Amino acid sequence: MENCLLLDAGSGGRASQRLVAQCFLRHFANPLLERLDDAALLDDLVGPLAMSTDTYTVTPLFFPGGSIGSLAVHGTVNDVSMLGARPRYLSCGFVLEEGLPLDILERVAADMGAAARTAGVVIVTGDTKVVPRGACDKIFINTTGVGTVFATPPPSGHHARPGDAVLVSGALGDHGLTVMGSREGLSFLSDVASDSAPLNHMIAEIIESAGEVHVLRDPTRGGLATTLNEIAEQSQVHIELDEASIPVHESVRSGCSFLGLDPLYLANEGKCICILPEEHAEAALAAMRRSPYGREAARVGTVAAGKAQVSLVTRIGGRRLLGMLEGAQLPRIC
Amino acid sequence: MENCLLLDAGSGGRASQRLVAQCFLRHFANPLLERLDDAALLDDLVGPLAMSTDTYTVTPLFFPGGSIGSLAVHGTVNDVSMLGARPRYLSCGFVLEEGLPLDILERVAADMGAAARTAGVVIVTGDTKVVPRGACDKIFINTTGVGTVFATPPPSGHHARPGDAVLVSGALGDHGLTVMGSREGLSFLSDVASDSAPLNHMIAEIIESAGEVHVLRDPTRGGLATTLNEIAEQSQVHIELDEASIPVHESVRSGCSFLGLDPLYLANEGKCICILPEEHAEAALAAMRRSPYGREAARVGTVAAGKAQVSLVTRIGGRRLLGMLEGAQLPRIC
Repeated sequence: MENCLLLDAGSGGRASQRLVAQCFLRHFANPLLERLDDAALLDDLVGPLAMSTDTYTVTPLFFPGGSIGSLAVHGTVNDVSMLGARPRYLSCGFVLEEGLPLDILERVAADMGAAARTAGVVIVTGDTKVVPRGACDKIFINTTGVGTVFATPPPSGHHARPGDAVLVSGALGDHGLTVMGSREGLSFLSDVASDSAPLNHMIAEIIESAGEVHVLRDPTRGGLATTLNEIAEQSQVHIELDEASIPVHESVRSGCSFLGLDPLYLANEGKCICILPEEHAEAALAAMRRSPYGREAARVGTVAAGKAQVSLVTRIGGRRLLGMLEGAQLPRIC
Repeated sequence: MENCLLLDAGSGGRASQRLVAQCFLRHFANPLLERLDDAALLDDLVGPLAMSTDTYTVTPLFFPGGSIGSLAVHGTVNDVSMLGARPRYLSCGFVLEEGLPLDILERVAADMGAAARTAGVVIVTGDTKVVPRGACDKIFINTTGVGTVFATPPPSGHHARPGDAVLVSGALGDHGLTVMGSREGLSFLSDVASDSAPLNHMIAEIIESAGEVHVLRDPTRGGLATTLNEIAEQSQVHIELDEASIPVHESVRSGCSFLGLDPLYLANEGKCICILPEEHAEAALAAMRRSPYGREAARVGTVAAGKAQVSLVTRIGGRRLLGMLEGAQLPRIC
């Protein structure tokens, strides 16, 4: 089957060389990667540095709004950005299943290359393992990113302070519901799409415009509610959300309602939470709204002193605690 | 089954937090990792930098001389070192199969932590995915390493020059044959063990002692023969090896002979190839032999002008070409 991946391509020998040359070097083309030494030489990266890693196991490989390839770039670019850094370089480690159709791999690599170019990052070093049929499900991709931290001090989940405003850069739950819908073939979800996007340029704008930013986090697995609970614990603060101000697309709201899901616990792949002093909130919101990925940005709450937890003031004026996700809402979402 | 990994542990919620706290933070303990932000802040790393990544899928998970855990640290530490760099920080991405016995994960994490401490590197950021039963085989680990390049110019596969000496830091084939033996339960291989080891301190000694080093590579998948072929192509030189001088343990030689394998194509995980000007060869060999991982170091050949290929002068004085490995000698060797 010449159109399917053979075990040989992971051997480290001639067949590996061909796969790297014909697929990865072509789509990721850059002089640093083309050296093909054991490590990449990055001679223009100055500290302090941010480093982040994620392995992507999402299924299906392609979904409305993206693929495992674009997600593998966006996710890590975003994680590096959340430290107030400009992501520059990515590494890329593939685990591929024997028998994988080569056109699938080609599409994934093309998506990665395109996403990297859009984000302005370069894939400089990589590794490919091919495992026998059944030892992995099609494709897993690890990307690890590094970049220069420019925010002083760097934002951290530990830095939320009572009185801070809590912003989100757009509507919540799109990615999680999209992946679930494509996996299960739920036709009534046909108008939702993943929000997968590179946030690095928007984050740079937010920090430049607002000056002082205490916390930046992207609410991926576990969604807004879980990420805010982590921040509440790390900073030992109470976070109060106003339900009516939390942006959720109508299609997501109705899909969630039908499936018994809460969009506040669904994964996002193109959103950030920004917590900063009240007086800078408007500048940060304006910076978000200037980005194509932040047009629906909103202020959703306030940080208060008190017990480390997250509460929600509901549309009808009630108040309830918003706990952390306990277990898996959906595996292989990213 | 409370002693087995549940899907929940990959959810990003409370169950994920527990796994991270009870297993990874305990074994990898360090203040950078304990921040648990989206990215790690590395504020003392100065450029130029080397960056390398590898995903480890070896089976079995434990084998004489090491495990997937120690290997995942050694392999990436070594790749970073080969650029003439001091590896400092590792990221770590796990893909774990639902139902994995937790004591297995615990042993793997303990091995990683111990290997990192021995090598003097710190695991600063990580990611854990748990996939449903059957979607991966037990444990895959990606590690990505960064460190500061101190060699000027950095060694590269492109820098071999006619007249250079070719050294290897010890006996070849141990890792490949060991993994094969443990997988197949070959009892006549009971006296071989993986050479998996962190070479960073030895590499620093070699560069300091020898001054000028043209090429450093670790002959992992595809073995010495394949790695030298890559170097011959990158540098457009002919590499001549002297078979009698290539160190191979007697147990490996006889095991290979029995199985019809060539130790020159078997993976090594604690060896380096060093190519450098003739006049520095003795200093480099002496530096290798001072390291516990380089006691059997040997000069094995010479770089010549001519067609980009590798030839072997045999014990009986004949000469044969040593091609690159074409396909897979053994999948999941590292």
